[in-house]
Amino acid sequence: MGRRAPRLQPEALPDLAPASSAARQLQEVRMFRNAMPRYEILSQESLAVLDKGWRRLVSDIGVEFLSDRALDLFRAAGQKVDDNNVRFDPDFILEQVAKAPREFDIQARNPEKSVHIGGDSMAFGGVYGPPFVREGEVRRDATMDDFRNFTKLAQSFSMLDSAGGVICEPNDAPLDSRHLDMIYALQTLTDKIYMGNVVSGVNARDTLAMTDILFGGRANIEATPATISLINCNSPLRWDDRMLDAQFEYSAANQPVVITPFLLMGAMSPVSIPATLAQQMAEALTGITLSQLIRPGSPVVFGSFLSNIDMQSGSPQFGTPESAVGLLCTGQIARHFGLPVRSGGALTSSQVPDAQAAYEGLMTMLPSFLAGINWVMHTAGWLDGGLVASYEKFVIDMQILEMLQAEFTPLEFTEENLAFGAHEEVGHGGHFLGAAHTMERFRTCFYRPFLSSSDNYDRWMRNGAKDAAARASDVWRKKLDEYEQPPIDEAVREELEAYVTRRRAELGD
Amino acid sequence: MGRRAPRLQPEALPDLAPASSAARQLQEVRMFRNAMPRYEILSQESLAVLDKGWRRLVSDIGVEFLSDRALDLFRAAGQKVDDNNVRFDPDFILEQVAKAPREFDIQARNPEKSVHIGGDSMAFGGVYGPPFVREGEVRRDATMDDFRNFTKLAQSFSMLDSAGGVICEPNDAPLDSRHLDMIYALQTLTDKIYMGNVVSGVNARDTLAMTDILFGGRANIEATPATISLINCNSPLRWDDRMLDAQFEYSAANQPVVITPFLLMGAMSPVSIPATLAQQMAEALTGITLSQLIRPGSPVVFGSFLSNIDMQSGSPQFGTPESAVGLLCTGQIARHFGLPVRSGGALTSSQVPDAQAAYEGLMTMLPSFLAGINWVMHTAGWLDGGLVASYEKFVIDMQILEMLQAEFTPLEFTEENLAFGAHEEVGHGGHFLGAAHTMERFRTCFYRPFLSSSDNYDRWMRNGAKDAAARASDVWRKKLDEYEQPPIDEAVREELEAYVTRRRAELGD
Repeated sequence: MGRRAPRLQPEALPDLAPASSAARQLQEVRMFRNAMPRYEILSQESLAVLDKGWRRLVSDIGVEFLSDRALDLFRAAGQKVDDNNVRFDPDFILEQVAKAPREFDIQARNPEKSVHIGGDSMAFGGVYGPPFVREGEVRRDATMDDFRNFTKLAQSFSMLDSAGGVICEPNDAPLDSRHLDMIYALQTLTDKIYMGNVVSGVNARDTLAMTDILFGGRANIEATPATISLINCNSPLRWDDRMLDAQFEYSAANQPVVITPFLLMGAMSPVSIPATLAQQMAEALTGITLSQLIRPGSPVVFGSFLSNIDMQSGSPQFGTPESAVGLLCTGQIARHFGLPVRSGGALTSSQVPDAQAAYEGLMTMLPSFLAGINWVMHTAGWLDGGLVASYEKFVIDMQILEMLQAEFTPLEFTEENLAFGAHEEVGHGGHFLGAAHTMERFRTCFYRPFLSSSDNYDRWMRNGAKDAAARASDVWRKKLDEYEQPPIDEAVREELEAYVTRRRAELGD
Repeated sequence: MGRRAPRLQPEALPDLAPASSAARQLQEVRMFRNAMPRYEILSQESLAVLDKGWRRLVSDIGVEFLSDRALDLFRAAGQKVDDNNVRFDPDFILEQVAKAPREFDIQARNPEKSVHIGGDSMAFGGVYGPPFVREGEVRRDATMDDFRNFTKLAQSFSMLDSAGGVICEPNDAPLDSRHLDMIYALQTLTDKIYMGNVVSGVNARDTLAMTDILFGGRANIEATPATISLINCNSPLRWDDRMLDAQFEYSAANQPVVITPFLLMGAMSPVSIPATLAQQMAEALTGITLSQLIRPGSPVVFGSFLSNIDMQSGSPQFGTPESAVGLLCTGQIARHFGLPVRSGGALTSSQVPDAQAAYEGLMTMLPSFLAGINWVMHTAGWLDGGLVASYEKFVIDMQILEMLQAEFTPLEFTEENLAFGAHEEVGHGGHFLGAAHTMERFRTCFYRPFLSSSDNYDRWMRNGAKDAAARASDVWRKKLDEYEQPPIDEAVREELEAYVTRRRAELGD
């Protein structure tokens, strides 16, 4: 370092609120807009190579759709259908893709928390899908109580736009009806947007029916969507029946679908990033084409979930250099097609919320900002290759997200911000702590972290020598203690509850 | 996640070497070149505001130089000198800055490890200056043995170009002569470039004399520099005598100096990033001007060490959003002046090598790549606000650096890389594990981490349930065990040793 920073006495400045002031500011901003430049690494020549690649894939090899309804639509539109395989005219695909909106809104039941998808907006949702939970040193099956806890935490952190959807698998709830419990929890424990269930067409219809209840009928949600759903490709080049059934429901109801090739290079795609990007384009664009045939103009998101396996063990790896590069390219590719884009998250292979979990998570989250991703899933809580929803990692991820939101807020370069008067006041070799310029701004001039510690060593030892994971454990317990359920119209809540009860009985649970 | 990745049997693919194959590849590349685009966030208008700012600072307020030799040079060059304060003609500064080379080489005693500074080259050095060491759970005073250990570790990791300089303060070595021990260790335990001592002009002369011995005389190191030294500003706007004395020695001998404003916003600069950037320009450019007056054309680096204090406690904070933004701007500003740039590192306030240490470190390291920083100090081992050199953090930082070097290696977009043949072979819904394209490339297709674990949970538990810090502890101990001293001409080594012995006696230690 070469020089030491002066340590100030605590009394040198008036007290700041212990909680993050920046967090409160962001809450007032409603949602994050990334007005910083995009970091684009693909040349026009590289894009042309990729363009040739996806065109050849969709026209020569084709894409399988395990859905008669989908095949009928493609056949009627003049595409070449053999068994389940569809060979496309690439220009037909581009015509359909052009019908999708470049940007759209998703309404939350609290209008302050409605979300815009596309342009420079970035919306963030929690981890999606883990069957296990980690709480401190304990790793165990996830339960419905865990699901509710994570939903409450998502409500408690203002920088998160959504708890997500299947934030963890509630293994103690009956399989056929647990989607009802999850949607009900998302609708009542948060007032933010939520993701729809995609396990089957039936589950999608239940999601839509409950969304109708919450938002006052189908016409209202068709006018402004109120849920967003993840449709994964069974890569390579195959769309499975159950997810397609869900896609049919959501697109028909004008609810956005995130059309996502699920690509772990080496398993579901070739061991080459360019090849994987071309495949991702072929898969995403054909899925998007289907939505436009189901309902022209229905909202879609160009989805990406791209990482690689370890070629020794076959294990998926997350937060890798390859996934970061793929993510940067994906943002640029989606903009090339005029589509909102989903990618990123705080992904990691680490089994615990340690240094690896943090560097791998940030290795995916920071490029999400650079790439201008619009819908970021798995923002909070992802651990152990996505098998675990971690309470402590959730808090660490919220800290990282809040830092990045502060970092990707453009500076103002004005004469006044040069603070020449402060230099006149302080002069050579002095310090700015007591300068008038400082005193006027010290409450808000810098981002203040809520989890990171910059305590000196003695103070840190006196405070229990807690590392970031231990402090994160304190934070989520406190957040749950302080959680307040957002108000909901009791008649609506009763109607939702009645729907859940009735459908659970019908489903035999 | 929505879909699970297939877990392969270990026997599905032939054995890969346990160590990182990417590390070996990078070693052959000799040093890292960042051929990815720069991420530039300053508009021409913002640059114009900053330009106005530094011009006003150097001409209206001026910069203090506590050195009669410096004041004489400025006076003789027609600048306005009052006591220690120099008011500059900004255009005079630009004339002098234009004399500095845009790029230059630094020779290592092993020519394979010589380094280029400037352009798209990035060179990386270890942490610099901590008085304490952390080893596992123990934090204690640093010793000369620690210094030697870290120097050996720096030799052992191919992605590091230099151990640095004062990698830790050897508190058990006599104060007046410890610089001799440090330089001797850097010269003999590594064959990489090393940093010069800057505590005083005397120490700089010793560094140069020992460098003369190692590289065959002053003429050889004047022709191609063989050491690089850090000159810090006593910000705001003051250059102190001891560092200036060192700068005189190094610049006169044509050895590069890294002219670095040391800016913790709120203490040494105003609580405004634009103001701090303008001050940084004023300080760096006046220091660089001095080097050009000492010896026109002598190599310099535009240095930056920019973070902020916590406005509640006064503690320095590292890995902050503000420091990342400042870093991005600094790269662009240095290129604006045609100068190589130093910044970045794996900085953190965290007291232990935990999640915070990792996310704060990466929050500075990733922007170092985006900004195209040429000389990155504090790349490995920095902990606890720079007060601690941590063995475990050193290894974690090496992991992060190697990942970033892989990430910032441009892709090739060719027809062949689209792997169309692999798609023809695999078809729909299959997997690429056994494809010919995969089998030909599986050894090198992806970066393989040496520290990160993607073991499944059961295997990870069986292997001792070690987190990243615990595994890092294993790695550095193994590296030290396996360390081999690079060969050195025995006559040269004896001459160095004799110099150290003689000078230690002269210095009274």
